[in-house]
Amino acid sequence: MAFQIRTDLALEARESAEEASGDLRGVSVDEYDLEASDIHVTKVVIESANGATALGKPIGTYITLEAPAMTEPDEDYHKEISEEIAKQLWELLPDMTREQSILVVGLGNRDVTADSLGPRVTDNLLITRQVMKEFGAAAYEREKMHSISAVVPGVMAATGMETAEIIRGVAGQTKPDAVVVIDALAARSTRRLNRTIQITNTGIHPGSGVGNHRNAITAQTIDVPVVIAIGIPTVVDAQTIVNDAIGRWNVGEHGSGGALETPELLPELANFYVTGKDVDEIVKRLSYTISEGLNRAFERFGAES
Amino acid sequence: MAFQIRTDLALEARESAEEASGDLRGVSVDEYDLEASDIHVTKVVIESANGATALGKPIGTYITLEAPAMTEPDEDYHKEISEEIAKQLWELLPDMTREQSILVVGLGNRDVTADSLGPRVTDNLLITRQVMKEFGAAAYEREKMHSISAVVPGVMAATGMETAEIIRGVAGQTKPDAVVVIDALAARSTRRLNRTIQITNTGIHPGSGVGNHRNAITAQTIDVPVVIAIGIPTVVDAQTIVNDAIGRWNVGEHGSGGALETPELLPELANFYVTGKDVDEIVKRLSYTISEGLNRAFERFGAES
Amino acid sequence: MAFQIRTDLALEARESAEEASGDLRGVSVDEYDLEASDIHVTKVVIESANGATALGKPIGTYITLEAPAMTEPDEDYHKEISEEIAKQLWELLPDMTREQSILVVGLGNRDVTADSLGPRVTDNLLITRQVMKEFGAAAYEREKMHSISAVVPGVMAATGMETAEIIRGVAGQTKPDAVVVIDALAARSTRRLNRTIQITNTGIHPGSGVGNHRNAITAQTIDVPVVIAIGIPTVVDAQTIVNDAIGRWNVGEHGSGGALETPELLPELANFYVTGKDVDEIVKRLSYTISEGLNRAFERFGAES
Amino acid sequence: MAFQIRTDLALEARESAEEASGDLRGVSVDEYDLEASDIHVTKVVIESANGATALGKPIGTYITLEAPAMTEPDEDYHKEISEEIAKQLWELLPDMTREQSILVVGLGNRDVTADSLGPRVTDNLLITRQVMKEFGAAAYEREKMHSISAVVPGVMAATGMETAEIIRGVAGQTKPDAVVVIDALAARSTRRLNRTIQITNTGIHPGSGVGNHRNAITAQTIDVPVVIAIGIPTVVDAQTIVNDAIGRWNVGEHGSGGALETPELLPELANFYVTGKDVDEIVKRLSYTISEGLNRAFERFGAES
Repeated sequence: MAFQIRTDLALEARESAEEASGDLRGVSVDEYDLEASDIHVTKVVIESANGATALGKPIGTYITLEAPAMTEPDEDYHKEISEEIAKQLWELLPDMTREQSILVVGLGNRDVTADSLGPRVTDNLLITRQVMKEFGAAAYEREKMHSISAVVPGVMAATGMETAEIIRGVAGQTKPDAVVVIDALAARSTRRLNRTIQITNTGIHPGSGVGNHRNAITAQTIDVPVVIAIGIPTVVDAQTIVNDAIGRWNVGEHGSGGALETPELLPELANFYVTGKDVDEIVKRLSYTISEGLNRAFERFGAES
Repeated sequence: MAFQIRTDLALEARESAEEASGDLRGVSVDEYDLEASDIHVTKVVIESANGATALGKPIGTYITLEAPAMTEPDEDYHKEISEEIAKQLWELLPDMTREQSILVVGLGNRDVTADSLGPRVTDNLLITRQVMKEFGAAAYEREKMHSISAVVPGVMAATGMETAEIIRGVAGQTKPDAVVVIDALAARSTRRLNRTIQITNTGIHPGSGVGNHRNAITAQTIDVPVVIAIGIPTVVDAQTIVNDAIGRWNVGEHGSGGALETPELLPELANFYVTGKDVDEIVKRLSYTISEGLNRAFERFGAES
Repeated sequence: MAFQIRTDLALEARESAEEASGDLRGVSVDEYDLEASDIHVTKVVIESANGATALGKPIGTYITLEAPAMTEPDEDYHKEISEEIAKQLWELLPDMTREQSILVVGLGNRDVTADSLGPRVTDNLLITRQVMKEFGAAAYEREKMHSISAVVPGVMAATGMETAEIIRGVAGQTKPDAVVVIDALAARSTRRLNRTIQITNTGIHPGSGVGNHRNAITAQTIDVPVVIAIGIPTVVDAQTIVNDAIGRWNVGEHGSGGALETPELLPELANFYVTGKDVDEIVKRLSYTISEGLNRAFERFGAES
Repeated sequence: MAFQIRTDLALEARESAEEASGDLRGVSVDEYDLEASDIHVTKVVIESANGATALGKPIGTYITLEAPAMTEPDEDYHKEISEEIAKQLWELLPDMTREQSILVVGLGNRDVTADSLGPRVTDNLLITRQVMKEFGAAAYEREKMHSISAVVPGVMAATGMETAEIIRGVAGQTKPDAVVVIDALAARSTRRLNRTIQITNTGIHPGSGVGNHRNAITAQTIDVPVVIAIGIPTVVDAQTIVNDAIGRWNVGEHGSGGALETPELLPELANFYVTGKDVDEIVKRLSYTISEGLNRAFERFGAES
């Protein structure tokens, strides 16, 4: 296809790949609905190079939680969603029944609403590393609390540094067992904006996110054993939305092929994205739900086991 | 045309009207370039009901300053642009050689980057009303300073009130001679985003701006003799951009008419807008240039005469 | 007394008055502890001119909730405190079993941490007026939801207007049944900072708060039937703290009278205040607890009755 | 002295030391006024261990610029002050006639107004490292621009890490020739608040600043050849102000010694500080003046030589 699919969601990459070829060897998919809550879970596992090529994503596990209600106000701040986030994290993180040190990274730009998810999530985290360092193992035995630290690296235009440089430097000093990166993602269609959470153990790879801070952040690039990435799509690439619209219009009206002919009208949109008018309220809520999920996974959740 | 033009710029409305019919009776246009600076000035005057219908804008004067360099950093903070803003304001405002009381209104949502122009402009204004009230006429004689006040009403989702209700209430108490409203606008194409300033004496009318705070703000609705609106387009309506893209693609590839057939794929985009990835830096600069323009018009500029 | 007591808390004014004279005719006091929670409630009622003179506060009811735990993190966001706030508000507000329209005013300066309580409380309020206006009485019958609006007037240095002018103007347009004003207060001693909530039906009176936005806001000045003020002391006036320290030191070391001799060293501190190093975390928590209290009083609480 | 002097200003430490003993061997002082501007420059050089002990500050150079007008609004944003900052930096930094890579660190807490100087300064810096890396030496030859990067580490309560750990990590990755740290300081008296800039080549040492982020940041602790610190006192330690007041009152009224007897009334003030009511406006202006000074030193200033 002349026009590269611009999506950070393995879920959408798979759909597109299916349309394009249907060859999905090396990709396993498991889907189920959570009882007693309106959450649809899809687990895409890319098992081989063929699967990675087909989806344009690295080998690894991609869990998506789709919860249409996620953008609505809720008295319990979407407790069931944050509990599911905690459960999934618990499985992807290293042995959480023993004390772990975890560095949470809030990617993105606090000054751009649609890109502020990462920094906002760190605002509501329970930070414990300084306490654990002071009281040592006793604190963990007593509290079953893990050693949590957080950093908001900022974007390259403001720091002059690549995000990976900053994280590698900080991780090199504090030697966490795992890094959890939070970032705003780009979806292919507005249908999934703000209602889909992707959790993956492959880290972050250059994509079409809001900011230009998307150099690869993986176990290799930052030299940490485990790198989990949690993301929610808050934008759609402007070129993608126009291309898809033309493709659909074109298929509908004049048979296939439109998408192939459109690149020439896209360049003007290269640095633009599409987002919702209520993005501020929504990012505020979503960041709260994710930070609750992290807090459960790191503290309360740990205490229960 | 089946699809209503979504633009707050009289300049673009005129272009579209020209394409559509060419009947521009009741609309006069004057254009010129400013020497010693890269600013193109267009003055559209809608003189009659026919002109108002053709452009879908009320009768009045619409001045646009187009300055491609506006988004670039500049040591003097675009002095020449802020001076031109001051000059144009000086002509639209009531007798500025006598003391005037002016209420500046920063429309929009501080928490949505693309919609934060208005609130940010008020942050850098020289507020003098409280001083003038304390020292009275003497202060004006000495300083040739006008009585400037400012308010940021906020958006309906946060206040439960219409912006016009709040402004009418505040103006009813402080009885300003004129109100100057600052707001982020929507353009038809990304070509004019962030590099066009529109100054009009018609106030604000429901349009396709970023927020849902666009109830009419005019001399009638807020009961103030003069209402000037200053706006810069920071977004493009998502439906507009897709529609235009299809229109152009369609015309280019298969002759005319595409635009007529597209409404059915637009609804999903009704609450979305397109904006630039560097919107934070740009809105920061633009708000500074506009507040400098207002400060010149209200204080230094006044002192010179 | 040469040095005026600088406190916004009727509780402290009463203590000082007692020390000074002991004449507390016209002041009734009722105290009790809430079972199952560590909240101490004091209800000071100033019933006569003599009481008002003795305490330097207007006639009316002053309820203070003292909760030492208030500054600590809490999973339920201090549910018991917000429930008590709701209960007390419910008693001071007009007939809440019928639909009421209430305007909440967030006083203070969002850019000064210790003064940002009011604006922050409005950030978490459930705003319903725009919905009620759209769906009318049916919405109240169905939801038992009151018509809630909110405004953040800003400080005079930023607006050029007195806060009361802005509120009077807004209330004049929207005609609320009651106004609830939220503000950061000044205490006499650091002992009560951040752990005392004062709720009064006397509105706001010029005091020693953080900002210079303390012109009177009462039923008379803003022309609304009922004006409730909710405040938490986040600062101590710098002159007060030095004066008290000298007074105590002086009494302790050299017998009484120190306070009388100290005014000459105070002027340099006239525009300074004392606040805690963790004021940001604390104001964030307190504002959340208060907004929860208001939301309970206005919505859920109403629904229960 | 029973009560340790709480000041980050070498200037004040010297005054106190003089009062206390007068033994200032190992401390050289040079003072002068700048012509054509109201700036008083004091250069304190601590040359020996004896001097370091006497002043309670490490060996090194401490330059203070006192400019009473600094807090006032100014059309040129205090050009003469930012030029003097640039001049002094130019002398303390390594060979600026050759390309240097400099990391600017904005210490402090953005959410606490009086502590937000560092983060705010970085907001207005010209960041060039990413450009220099892309265009290499050519860029320097053409622009005479140095390679500037910046980081805002945040405070320990939010990160769980010591500021020095984060800076050491980031510097370890980017290997700057020099680090310039910006921080809000504590003065001994309100007289010097907001009107004194201290520039030193000794870095940052645990002191009585606003936040609890004051672990040592020196060439040794972060492993960078040169560490310059620029600070402005925005607060006074609450214990200091009370102690000084009692001391002065006591000396004035009853002869000397008061300060010796006061520690018992200080503990309650341990975690409190004194700041001005207009701290938001002032920190906004000061941060702008400092960032202008840095930009001049790094770019324009460099280009001139």
